[in-house]
Amino acid sequence: MKALIVTTDGFEDSELTYPYYRLQEAGLDVALATPAGESVVGKIGEEMDADLAISDASEDEYDLLVVPGGHAPENLRLEAEEAVDLVREFDASDKPIASVCHGAQLLISADVLEGREATGYWSIRVDIENAGATFVDEECVVDDNLITARYPDDLPAWLSAVLERVEAQPAAAD
Amino acid sequence: MKALIVTTDGFEDSELTYPYYRLQEAGLDVALATPAGESVVGKIGEEMDADLAISDASEDEYDLLVVPGGHAPENLRLEAEEAVDLVREFDASDKPIASVCHGAQLLISADVLEGREATGYWSIRVDIENAGATFVDEECVVDDNLITARYPDDLPAWLSAVLERVEAQPAAAD
Amino acid sequence: MKALIVTTDGFEDSELTYPYYRLQEAGLDVALATPAGESVVGKIGEEMDADLAISDASEDEYDLLVVPGGHAPENLRLEAEEAVDLVREFDASDKPIASVCHGAQLLISADVLEGREATGYWSIRVDIENAGATFVDEECVVDDNLITARYPDDLPAWLSAVLERVEAQPAAAD
Amino acid sequence: MKALIVTTDGFEDSELTYPYYRLQEAGLDVALATPAGESVVGKIGEEMDADLAISDASEDEYDLLVVPGGHAPENLRLEAEEAVDLVREFDASDKPIASVCHGAQLLISADVLEGREATGYWSIRVDIENAGATFVDEECVVDDNLITARYPDDLPAWLSAVLERVEAQPAAAD
Amino acid sequence: MKALIVTTDGFEDSELTYPYYRLQEAGLDVALATPAGESVVGKIGEEMDADLAISDASEDEYDLLVVPGGHAPENLRLEAEEAVDLVREFDASDKPIASVCHGAQLLISADVLEGREATGYWSIRVDIENAGATFVDEECVVDDNLITARYPDDLPAWLSAVLERVEAQPAAAD
Amino acid sequence: MKALIVTTDGFEDSELTYPYYRLQEAGLDVALATPAGESVVGKIGEEMDADLAISDASEDEYDLLVVPGGHAPENLRLEAEEAVDLVREFDASDKPIASVCHGAQLLISADVLEGREATGYWSIRVDIENAGATFVDEECVVDDNLITARYPDDLPAWLSAVLERVEAQPAAAD
Repeated sequence: MKALIVTTDGFEDSELTYPYYRLQEAGLDVALATPAGESVVGKIGEEMDADLAISDASEDEYDLLVVPGGHAPENLRLEAEEAVDLVREFDASDKPIASVCHGAQLLISADVLEGREATGYWSIRVDIENAGATFVDEECVVDDNLITARYPDDLPAWLSAVLERVEAQPAAAD
Repeated sequence: MKALIVTTDGFEDSELTYPYYRLQEAGLDVALATPAGESVVGKIGEEMDADLAISDASEDEYDLLVVPGGHAPENLRLEAEEAVDLVREFDASDKPIASVCHGAQLLISADVLEGREATGYWSIRVDIENAGATFVDEECVVDDNLITARYPDDLPAWLSAVLERVEAQPAAAD
Repeated sequence: MKALIVTTDGFEDSELTYPYYRLQEAGLDVALATPAGESVVGKIGEEMDADLAISDASEDEYDLLVVPGGHAPENLRLEAEEAVDLVREFDASDKPIASVCHGAQLLISADVLEGREATGYWSIRVDIENAGATFVDEECVVDDNLITARYPDDLPAWLSAVLERVEAQPAAAD
Repeated sequence: MKALIVTTDGFEDSELTYPYYRLQEAGLDVALATPAGESVVGKIGEEMDADLAISDASEDEYDLLVVPGGHAPENLRLEAEEAVDLVREFDASDKPIASVCHGAQLLISADVLEGREATGYWSIRVDIENAGATFVDEECVVDDNLITARYPDDLPAWLSAVLERVEAQPAAAD
Repeated sequence: MKALIVTTDGFEDSELTYPYYRLQEAGLDVALATPAGESVVGKIGEEMDADLAISDASEDEYDLLVVPGGHAPENLRLEAEEAVDLVREFDASDKPIASVCHGAQLLISADVLEGREATGYWSIRVDIENAGATFVDEECVVDDNLITARYPDDLPAWLSAVLERVEAQPAAAD
Repeated sequence: MKALIVTTDGFEDSELTYPYYRLQEAGLDVALATPAGESVVGKIGEEMDADLAISDASEDEYDLLVVPGGHAPENLRLEAEEAVDLVREFDASDKPIASVCHGAQLLISADVLEGREATGYWSIRVDIENAGATFVDEECVVDDNLITARYPDDLPAWLSAVLERVEAQPAAAD
């Protein structure tokens, strides 16, 4: 099983480190993709090395896409449109997409929220609704392959739901 | 003539200081409103004292509403819903509303963009469009009382349009 | 099951946030204790609220003691000697003590390393050895109730071992 | 009409951004000159790209010289003596020189204050007086071509006086 | 023997810590005076506790006045005019006054440089000269009771000269 | 006479600057050695240029070894083992070794504390004792060639003892 995390400078620190280590603990291979494969720095200051550039990541090699929050998702909209394409492709393949906090902004850009239930940080609730979703104010909202959460305190419930979904499906490329 | 600027911590520094001093230079009284009337600190670090709390500001006392960008508009969505009400009231009275960059997020929250032309920072273009507006990628977009711009380099064109509109109308309360 | 995390300002950020959220995900109640029950700030900048003062924590109410690293363990040596007492009491009761990185400094202070196998950040290897332990350079070293790791990249192996141990024992106070 | 702003690292942020955008709004071409044409960072943190090196700027191509304050003027004394020469040349040609706050330090270095009225930040009042000027504690002091102000709150009065003077004179090179 | 150091926020760190510890090592009592007796923070970040408020310091109780540089001397001009009075009183009593770097700005304010030889940081050379002094570009300049230096690298020569002078005179109040 | 200071990023600022300037004032040549001869930055932010790489420093060319504290000594344990070798060589030659605060960690690594009296920052007292030393809680502890102190306030007593020892011995290489 392989997970792909897409982010860039300004990520909410624990929203990246938690799934990054947690998915490894669960036995998944975890790859961190950034716009040019460069190291990135979180909103608070955590530095993380990347494994690949976002444009080099193919949906068919991964079983899960993770989108941490912070300022990174808005930055990705401008710095790496391929991140938006990846969201669209994972959704088209019905593979799990896990976003937390502002990570939902990438789902908005990919136009995959129409008619879905989802959550995210409260300050972008109106943007999530304008994208066609029903905003649910719960710690983790699962709508088929979309697994969304609101903020760091939701990390336990979010990862628990993510792993439940991942373990229920066959591995991708291997 | 009186102008009201609404903002909070995280404002884009020059997007607040420029209209703050420029409107004074043009002879307007300028009041800075923050959630509780507290001093605020910009994204880069500029500190500004406030004149009043947002909840104490009445639309009928002002001729112009200014919404600087940065992280402040998203913060206002959670910290001071009265800022959203003010946008709605200024629009209902057909008084000028000038937003720059992420300031457009307050216009989204107030639901005043349906069928209008507007602009804002490129990373929230999809959110502006989902709110029903036609996004125009120009330095300053004027749609009746809505005067919107994209980022600090648009400040000269934006303020020029703002003052043109303000000077064409009768003063509010005086 | 209840876990107690003891730390103070200067903790290594992910070494606190990872067990904090991970143990919750596993269903444990997690309490964060700081010298006076105050909020603390990590080495990088993460802010965490505390649940209680270290002096108010009793070993008999918890099933697990967690000691994150960073500058916090050395600070605890001076700010909260009760943290050292807690390590001694958990060890006397053969309850699991999980330290990572500089967290081992609290085990040195408690004098529980004599004749044990343990690990920690490489820069304090000599101090761990001088305390009587055999330093093992592996991602996670389990010696009965002592579960030690070296640095953030060891978090997955460390938490996996911690949970294995915790789930194998009867709950403490409940 | 063309304006030249001379500064370097440590400029008082709004004392650079305000005239930079305001003069553009008034229709002037604005060029920002730094010691080697490098980008500069303000005292608070604003980053500004430069248009040219100070040593490449000729007085006869500009109609106005602007000297923002902060730590930059003292730095210029050591980093770019040509900035001092420019002040002397603008004064010899009776072209407007607009300084605010510590910007007056460059006027001291150029020895153009003898027998003039001027103002500046209060902490360098004695240095302005020792240079032969009469210090006037007003928001904007105009003595022929010297237009000086004290601190950011004087920006509206200062720019108003600057533009009045600039618009009253024929353009330089065009 | 007693030494008085006068400073405030923004002092050049080593220009305060070096004389502070060095004079103690030489056996002097050292008192640190700040505007209101508050703790102060250096330009780089060193925090120092004060012993008294500047307004509570009497020249007749001390044998030596030390004025570190950085931004502190300019701040003192506005925050604590009594610091300027102290310089004048120490000079009137022919007691040693030791300034380094921008510390000379306090000597300018006290108007004690007329006809004297002195040095200071190069960026204020013109201000020192305009105050009537002959600027000497050497690591330490001694003109009777005035002992001035340019920047941190001059600390050894400066303190050596300061102690030579102090040890040659009878103690003040004791 | 020549002194060698070994340190790296994270040094306690005044614990480096004080001996650095003080030994120069006493007439010694002072060389600052860092892992690769690079400039280093203190815990608070002081920047210092280096004279040589630690691996290029030979004990037989110096009369004194100085080890400032802060985070630097622990960093040196990993970044420059030659620093540990130098401590061992200076001790074997009975040349003075002066450490302050966490500088004692380098003495622990060099295994020179067995049966000696020493001091250091209180938070590493247990580590100093586990290394075989008798911890003495005084401002300066002299045990033959080992001259140790606890923290910045001990700098005067420490340097006084260091110079007394240095001046009592013949010069090294000259």
